[in-house]
Amino acid sequence: MTRTVVSSATREVVIGDDQPFVIIGERINPTGRRALAEEMKAGDFSRVERDTLAQVAAGAHMLDVNAGIPLADEPAILARTIQLVQSLTDVPLSIDSSIVEALEAGLAVYQGRALVNSVTGEEERLERVLPLVKKYDAAVVAISNDETGISEDPDVRFAVAKRIVERAADHGIAATNILVDPLLMPIGAMPTAGRQVFRILGRLRDELKVNSTCGASNVSFGLPHREGINGAYLAMAMASGLTSAITDPIAAGVRQAVMAGDVLMGNDRDAARWIRTHRVAAVEGERGRRINRRRAGSASPA
Amino acid sequence: MTRTVVSSATREVVIGDDQPFVIIGERINPTGRRALAEEMKAGDFSRVERDTLAQVAAGAHMLDVNAGIPLADEPAILARTIQLVQSLTDVPLSIDSSIVEALEAGLAVYQGRALVNSVTGEEERLERVLPLVKKYDAAVVAISNDETGISEDPDVRFAVAKRIVERAADHGIAATNILVDPLLMPIGAMPTAGRQVFRILGRLRDELKVNSTCGASNVSFGLPHREGINGAYLAMAMASGLTSAITDPIAAGVRQAVMAGDVLMGNDRDAARWIRTHRVAAVEGERGRRINRRRAGSASPA
Repeated sequence: MTRTVVSSATREVVIGDDQPFVIIGERINPTGRRALAEEMKAGDFSRVERDTLAQVAAGAHMLDVNAGIPLADEPAILARTIQLVQSLTDVPLSIDSSIVEALEAGLAVYQGRALVNSVTGEEERLERVLPLVKKYDAAVVAISNDETGISEDPDVRFAVAKRIVERAADHGIAATNILVDPLLMPIGAMPTAGRQVFRILGRLRDELKVNSTCGASNVSFGLPHREGINGAYLAMAMASGLTSAITDPIAAGVRQAVMAGDVLMGNDRDAARWIRTHRVAAVEGERGRRINRRRAGSASPA
Repeated sequence: MTRTVVSSATREVVIGDDQPFVIIGERINPTGRRALAEEMKAGDFSRVERDTLAQVAAGAHMLDVNAGIPLADEPAILARTIQLVQSLTDVPLSIDSSIVEALEAGLAVYQGRALVNSVTGEEERLERVLPLVKKYDAAVVAISNDETGISEDPDVRFAVAKRIVERAADHGIAATNILVDPLLMPIGAMPTAGRQVFRILGRLRDELKVNSTCGASNVSFGLPHREGINGAYLAMAMASGLTSAITDPIAAGVRQAVMAGDVLMGNDRDAARWIRTHRVAAVEGERGRRINRRRAGSASPA
């Protein structure tokens, strides 16, 4: 059984096919969030603090931290954000940047064993990111594209992932330290996007025997009621082999789908978490109804 | 692409991996519904009428019809129920009985091409049910158990399914007319139940190239918030290859999961049904909020 271990100074998280699915909170990311980008650039991290606490309270097992702000000192801001987030929570972090200097700045201040997000199959990325991953004994997200772009053929994307795993081995990085991201496209733009990913995930689990992750919210881009699509996608991807995802833990539909997925994969022992969560919900619902009945009673004409 | 065609006198339904998932409404079944059993036995079919109309209104593509009432004349009651249901709706039916005489009585009155539910791998069932299926040119549900019971090894269950398909061929029944039921156990009692079924479904699709069906509500037996488990299960099973299910179309969580599953399998063209359904829901929600605001306004002290 393939197990990937990441940690903070005091907490370990294990990713694997026989483990509860790992949700990596996606919200600390200024891409497409102009207010957050401007605040972070100006040194105001109050929204980062709120996003940290809210995602952990909602059940995120890890948090992704991205500081990709145009024309800003990304390495410095990313390092500062990581230190701040680690002062607020003990969940392990994913250090997310397309700039190698920013990844290194983040790794230098990180307490524990980080997840580096990400390396691709592009030669220049492989040669710059893999030594860093080795140096800091980190885990790494391997995105299955290369210089030729993103293939629509799932078997080509699988082959790219396989090549990254082999190159990582050349650098002394074990396959257990790699989470392959099969690259999920918006289903509204590409009707085969789901099937492509389900196929790659099955091969990653059964043939390459590596763990996987995925930016899961992208799939519903442009559609109404995105949470319904995202939740169903995650359950389907779990059945196909996905073992973690970068997504929004605050969306109730996503949380419920993952929790049910854990039950159905046999990774919520005796369905204990499901039963606990939904018995509590049922009791609270009943209490709410009783309070409402009382209120309705006192308000009715006597 | 494997396509199974069933029909009523005026409507055809196609089951297949490139088609929207087919929901077979499960409610016309007196098993465990004492009031319904007593009414049907006494010749009162008013609840059957309501269940027919409600399930079709909720989007069922087919209806399962079962008249398994202890100490009753099941062949006569099943035939009468089928005639009644066919007078109320044009969706094709699944004729559901463990008594061969009842299957035959149902087939004799049925208008169109029925689904016979079911045959197993037991020798005596094979020899009695398959000739009926051939005689009436019906489709048939093949349940993957035999004289030795239900194996916990998915590959043994697959082998049983394969043998039924081969025996059907001996009777002149094409594999396209068979929906294999991989037999879903309650996940609360057997934590491997989900993985077993996902594995069998993958092999049915990729190796045996047959369609599949499944009694989907059983999986959540004994758990709270069953709809959440049932919906996630259906999405996961769709990703694994399931092409139809006998389930409750009236449960909103189940309907939504199947609809999202169709989008993610690329079988809801341009996500048109999803967009239509959720745009309408958004508009109705907005109208409801406006009405509530008006009411709140008129009720407030002036």
